[in-house]
Amino acid sequence: MLSTMQDEQLSLATLLRYAATFQGDSTVSTWTGDGVRTITYRELGALGAQLAHALRGLGIGVGDRVGTFMWNNNEHMCVYAAVPAMGAVLHALNIRLFPEQLVYVANHAEDRVVVVDGSLVPMFNQYLPALRTVRDVIVVNGDPATVQAPEGVTVHAWGELLGGQPTEYDFPILDERSAAGMCYTSGTTGDPKGVVYSHRSNWLHAMQVISPNGMGFTAADHVLAIVPLFHANAWGLPYAAMMSGADVLMPDRFLQPGPLLQMMAAQRPTFAAAVPTIWGGVLAQLDAAPQDIAHLRTVVVGGSALPPAMMHAFQEKYGVRLLHAWGMTETSPLGSVSHPPTGVPVEEEWEYRYSQGLFPASVRARLVGDDGAVLPNDGKAVGELEVRGPWITGSYYSPDGKEVDPDKFDDGWLRTGDVGKITPNGYLTLVDRTKDVIKSGGEWISSVDLENAILGHPAVAEASVIGIPDAKWDERPLVAVVLKEGVTAEPAELREFLADKFAKWQLPEYWTFIDEVPKTSVGKFDKKRLRARYADGDLEVVKL
Amino acid sequence: MLSTMQDEQLSLATLLRYAATFQGDSTVSTWTGDGVRTITYRELGALGAQLAHALRGLGIGVGDRVGTFMWNNNEHMCVYAAVPAMGAVLHALNIRLFPEQLVYVANHAEDRVVVVDGSLVPMFNQYLPALRTVRDVIVVNGDPATVQAPEGVTVHAWGELLGGQPTEYDFPILDERSAAGMCYTSGTTGDPKGVVYSHRSNWLHAMQVISPNGMGFTAADHVLAIVPLFHANAWGLPYAAMMSGADVLMPDRFLQPGPLLQMMAAQRPTFAAAVPTIWGGVLAQLDAAPQDIAHLRTVVVGGSALPPAMMHAFQEKYGVRLLHAWGMTETSPLGSVSHPPTGVPVEEEWEYRYSQGLFPASVRARLVGDDGAVLPNDGKAVGELEVRGPWITGSYYSPDGKEVDPDKFDDGWLRTGDVGKITPNGYLTLVDRTKDVIKSGGEWISSVDLENAILGHPAVAEASVIGIPDAKWDERPLVAVVLKEGVTAEPAELREFLADKFAKWQLPEYWTFIDEVPKTSVGKFDKKRLRARYADGDLEVVKL
Repeated sequence: MLSTMQDEQLSLATLLRYAATFQGDSTVSTWTGDGVRTITYRELGALGAQLAHALRGLGIGVGDRVGTFMWNNNEHMCVYAAVPAMGAVLHALNIRLFPEQLVYVANHAEDRVVVVDGSLVPMFNQYLPALRTVRDVIVVNGDPATVQAPEGVTVHAWGELLGGQPTEYDFPILDERSAAGMCYTSGTTGDPKGVVYSHRSNWLHAMQVISPNGMGFTAADHVLAIVPLFHANAWGLPYAAMMSGADVLMPDRFLQPGPLLQMMAAQRPTFAAAVPTIWGGVLAQLDAAPQDIAHLRTVVVGGSALPPAMMHAFQEKYGVRLLHAWGMTETSPLGSVSHPPTGVPVEEEWEYRYSQGLFPASVRARLVGDDGAVLPNDGKAVGELEVRGPWITGSYYSPDGKEVDPDKFDDGWLRTGDVGKITPNGYLTLVDRTKDVIKSGGEWISSVDLENAILGHPAVAEASVIGIPDAKWDERPLVAVVLKEGVTAEPAELREFLADKFAKWQLPEYWTFIDEVPKTSVGKFDKKRLRARYADGDLEVVKL
Repeated sequence: MLSTMQDEQLSLATLLRYAATFQGDSTVSTWTGDGVRTITYRELGALGAQLAHALRGLGIGVGDRVGTFMWNNNEHMCVYAAVPAMGAVLHALNIRLFPEQLVYVANHAEDRVVVVDGSLVPMFNQYLPALRTVRDVIVVNGDPATVQAPEGVTVHAWGELLGGQPTEYDFPILDERSAAGMCYTSGTTGDPKGVVYSHRSNWLHAMQVISPNGMGFTAADHVLAIVPLFHANAWGLPYAAMMSGADVLMPDRFLQPGPLLQMMAAQRPTFAAAVPTIWGGVLAQLDAAPQDIAHLRTVVVGGSALPPAMMHAFQEKYGVRLLHAWGMTETSPLGSVSHPPTGVPVEEEWEYRYSQGLFPASVRARLVGDDGAVLPNDGKAVGELEVRGPWITGSYYSPDGKEVDPDKFDDGWLRTGDVGKITPNGYLTLVDRTKDVIKSGGEWISSVDLENAILGHPAVAEASVIGIPDAKWDERPLVAVVLKEGVTAEPAELREFLADKFAKWQLPEYWTFIDEVPKTSVGKFDKKRLRARYADGDLEVVKL
């Protein structure tokens, strides 16, 4: 039996029309260093129509990819709004990718047009000759003459290209499963992999972002979008803002703690979103020069684990609630959010807030063990997190139809590569990445938990734990310790220090002392190199 | 270009699993007159599985209709949760329908099973012999022997039927456009018309209900569902509660103001939903015996226009915010909600709160004039409200495929039959029903506005305005006035009283005095009968 409901397609064209009319008084503002440039959503609708006409004039049609190479600003928001609305596909290029990756993703996605901020033209000039499918470059707030365009590439000024275009556009309503936008994962191994969001996935995700069990911002909020619009689908902020009628504040290139705090003092946002690194910098700056930031009622933090100490510092010193969230490019990205359950005592509330949080109804989550069996959500069993849902990717983009990395999918579920546990009331705590967790006798030992615990020993400066092959247990943990200058410690003493924090079978018997933990270009522990050193016999290992 | 997103179907089976696990500690409680019967969502999941097994045992499969004839209680919630989850179709019968309508809708929907509250068996016995497709009756909290079952109908006790069934069920995931539930409109003319909700529509609608720009309740809320579960898709409350993890309080048959207030004092709900009539009664009772009801942070009111005086009384005397909402059976039902815009002055805030409110992005709304042209949202132009969206019906249920009332649909839009205006910032104010509005010289005059204004005259007890044919203007208003006892007034004086409140062309020249305004069984003005009296020459009309 079929329903009588209208077969209305969820559409970012509908969303743009809605924002431009029923939420027309709301605004997007961009910080200029000492003030803001502001447009209303009504003006956003008109600008979006002009951009659509302009792109159409450049030959862009349904399904064509339009790239951006931009900071967070009004024009970037306009591209977010208008490109999917006209049926084209937004591809926000991550300006921080390694050069070869940047070139790879733009060519792989076959970007036809790229919109570039004037201030980023010098960087973009390094890549442009290698971008095989780009035919047009549109420069925002800058001089088109600064673009070193190869033959066959035309450069336009945003203002001239849009000016004079009609301020209305007959945005098409497509099948809701049509592509709306793309993002590439920036994995440390192999080529970046593309994820293609749909109108449907972005719509549903936006509904979840504004839900009280998501980020929960409303038309009354003034949302500071620090997370780059080129990062993991912009955390859904542009579409959620348009759907809710929230005002948006864009920091443009002013991302250092000082300028960010200056902007906050002037604009008093009520909600903000950024990765932990940004908030670490802001906190240090605040501690040096205190400032009232209690206008921020909520700050959502994701991208990597949020240190509890940072949550406490913001809450207790500055009255700002940091809300921990988990997600990834493949999940649009909003997965779980750490709203604590109602009515728990304050101490327990913190435990929930430290966790990666609770999933919404639209994101199904389960833990899977090493043998492929689904594990119970008992708060103890540790397994790989698998998710599914209408805004979770089911594959990676493949222009030639050949499956990309099919091992990342398990019978319709996305294998996240994150290892954790889930409590009976649904709260996720991540303990490791699958590639780092130690598989010992059918059980999993978290390398991260061991590292954090060992760091508590007064003699230890750094510690990195990897799994090494073991005939009996498959794998056992090897702890690589960097001692503080001028102190010594014996493996037996360090192991004893861990004894009351772990089950006996989890306690490491293999230890080594190193001068420094090898790190990646972004400062993360490079366990691949540590494993290679072990395999090469380059580490002096003590067995207890 | 297609997206890489998973083709996950929005499914009430997924919702039930989610509620029973990740929101397993939340509760549904039913008032018993002096306490509550409570089950957790975890228990709801187990009960739902048992019900699904039991119904399957009775031969119920995908697409079969299961009726309810029940008050709001735990078992009704269980039917709401489990019947769509197993792929069958829930049809909550409105126990207050006229007998011939009740029989009509149950036969038209071809209900195979009906679940009946023990306390409603005597009423249900009157209908049962006429229900042609019912084969099984399940009695909740009552004696099956009290059901007077015709031959071919088997009666079961809920507890016995479910007891012993497995507490897990392999709920299927269907195409999201599959039928999940049905409701019939109870129009005053013609047969009731069926609306069939889908898994998709109920899911999206639930996301909107819990959105801050919808009803906005959360896991922290304790939601009192006074609106009957058989009324307009239960306003989406069961599914929204399961999605959000809110606790639900069900009043069962205790719907009089006294018992409702007794229940509120004991249970202290934070959120409630009901039609204005209920709140009128509660207010009168409160005024007679004041009681703290400030535990209610929000009360959503819809179904008919909410009198401003009632909003003020609740707010100013009892600190309770009444939130006005508009919708209908055909719209699942949540359309617009009167959250005022941010930052407007308090006086203006009230004007917004009186209105029918703002639409969410998922419900497109427009006004259409008498000539079919779309009107501007300028706060002045008055037209019929048309809506479309993923939870708006696109047709009426037709078992034989023959279109039912196709005039109610306009090129993919639902014609609501409501007449109103929309401000530039998207707020709807309804002024009349299409069948009552007076179409005069291409412009529309609101009969309701005229009635309300004339009621302000000290001599007037009641007034009803209808359109009468006019050679020059098509229609002109005729005012039928009931004077207060012992006073007189002349038409010219009454017209003069209106002169500063309406444009000159809107002022009525036709007047008549009557003893009483004819009313329907539920106390609404019966303009059909008034029009018939006019047509029969039964009214003495004065023309000014």
